[in-house]
Amino acid sequence: MLYLVGLGLSDETDITVKGLEIVKKASRVYLEAYTSILLVDQAVLEKYYGRSIVIADREMVESQSDDILANAQTEDVAFLVVGDPFGATTHTDLVLRARELSIPVSSVPNASIMSGIGACGLQLYNFGQTVSMVFFTDNWRPDSFYDRVKENRDIGLHTLVLLDIKVKEPNLESLARGRIVYEPPRYMTVGTCASQMLEVEEKRKEDVYSEDSLAIGAARVGGRDQVFVAGTLRELCDADERLGLPLHSMVLLGRRTHELENDFVRDFAVDKEKWQRLWESEYQNKQ
Amino acid sequence: MLYLVGLGLSDETDITVKGLEIVKKASRVYLEAYTSILLVDQAVLEKYYGRSIVIADREMVESQSDDILANAQTEDVAFLVVGDPFGATTHTDLVLRARELSIPVSSVPNASIMSGIGACGLQLYNFGQTVSMVFFTDNWRPDSFYDRVKENRDIGLHTLVLLDIKVKEPNLESLARGRIVYEPPRYMTVGTCASQMLEVEEKRKEDVYSEDSLAIGAARVGGRDQVFVAGTLRELCDADERLGLPLHSMVLLGRRTHELENDFVRDFAVDKEKWQRLWESEYQNKQ
Repeated sequence: MLYLVGLGLSDETDITVKGLEIVKKASRVYLEAYTSILLVDQAVLEKYYGRSIVIADREMVESQSDDILANAQTEDVAFLVVGDPFGATTHTDLVLRARELSIPVSSVPNASIMSGIGACGLQLYNFGQTVSMVFFTDNWRPDSFYDRVKENRDIGLHTLVLLDIKVKEPNLESLARGRIVYEPPRYMTVGTCASQMLEVEEKRKEDVYSEDSLAIGAARVGGRDQVFVAGTLRELCDADERLGLPLHSMVLLGRRTHELENDFVRDFAVDKEKWQRLWESEYQNKQ
Repeated sequence: MLYLVGLGLSDETDITVKGLEIVKKASRVYLEAYTSILLVDQAVLEKYYGRSIVIADREMVESQSDDILANAQTEDVAFLVVGDPFGATTHTDLVLRARELSIPVSSVPNASIMSGIGACGLQLYNFGQTVSMVFFTDNWRPDSFYDRVKENRDIGLHTLVLLDIKVKEPNLESLARGRIVYEPPRYMTVGTCASQMLEVEEKRKEDVYSEDSLAIGAARVGGRDQVFVAGTLRELCDADERLGLPLHSMVLLGRRTHELENDFVRDFAVDKEKWQRLWESEYQNKQ
């Protein structure tokens, strides 16, 4: 059996009891470690599980999936995924390959950022499609997220923005010299996300949002020290210090809001009076 | 401290290790039992936790929240919620009341149907807003869901439909005679949902979807015996036997699809050839 086990969002104790039992009994345990991270190290997990785990990077999952699945017709293999196995990153390819090999598959769900973000106080019913924000480079500044945000905003819905992480990226200079040296990991902050969003609005000028649009920055959602900072996009450009360590994510508000959402979220505002003023003029009873 | 603890979707072992530790230590434990249910009984939970729990019905949560919160400034109170505490049903009112009483609040996330539905193989990125379907009665057949589905379909997105449950509903005849007798619980099936959806399309005639629209019925998502049945809305009207026991939910597909989603989902189809034909003519490469 191939078990896809969600680890939840924060630390080693966020695994479910069902998931932990599977991890303890499986023949081999892999940890998918390139699309998200827990806030604890591999060593902490290994100690907690009482066994060693194999870190599965993108290369391994995409090119060597048959190694992961070896003998899973008769043995139990656990494939651990931060969040939920079918959440922000789905591992449908691995499941499809398992089906081809007649390997039974079972999944153990857990909290995903796509539902965990509800802890900010906005109702999940009022969210539209989720978008991703990648790190802009000198010559790659993709703005397709802007069209998706526009679709959500046009019908009044909130948008969850998931922020890029770069782990195990080869250093290009070394690569050119024939050596593989990995860059230190990078995690996008809310500040970077907000400023990239404003840059794209500046370029596209379709009034999808503005510096004064209300948004919520989130850090370490689901962790004991999760932090939410609410403010305008301009304010969130400078909120990284308040938010602290990774992982960050963000929500851009839509106009279809409920007064209870405001009561809850205002408490997180950088500037409560400004938040309330913008809420009343731009959001309240607008749809 | 008030702890909101998510229980996940299926049985007693879906609680996280972190959540279980809190339940074992708290002074009092409440189980919110009117917006969703686990697939196991209270007695199973109590045995598993090694302690008694208080069932909190709607009346208690909405009108007697101060009893739930009593002394939580100094004691730990655990409030258990099926799924995620901020998922399909949010308990923001309880948190806001706790804030007023200067009670610190902590939440333990878990799988929600709103992310767990990803196990059907559709990418959560391609979902629009979630809608709810209530049991139609002779004189109450609300169709506001139809407008939401239309918004999603217009931009090619999938729609998760959450199905009504009725627990602890008073029998109206007895009530008129001054006695409170509760009806047996009722859980909407995919068949009822699909036929109510077709009824509303028939009435509104805005071509939001049709009998041949593709959809997925889901039963006991997150459980060891979860079942998905894929088919047209007409086919899903008759799929209750294949789906089996509650809880059910449903997804209506949008046109913004990925070939990998089809590869995954087709396996669940009532009629694979028909599914493939409709997929190719109505969905594939349409957006």
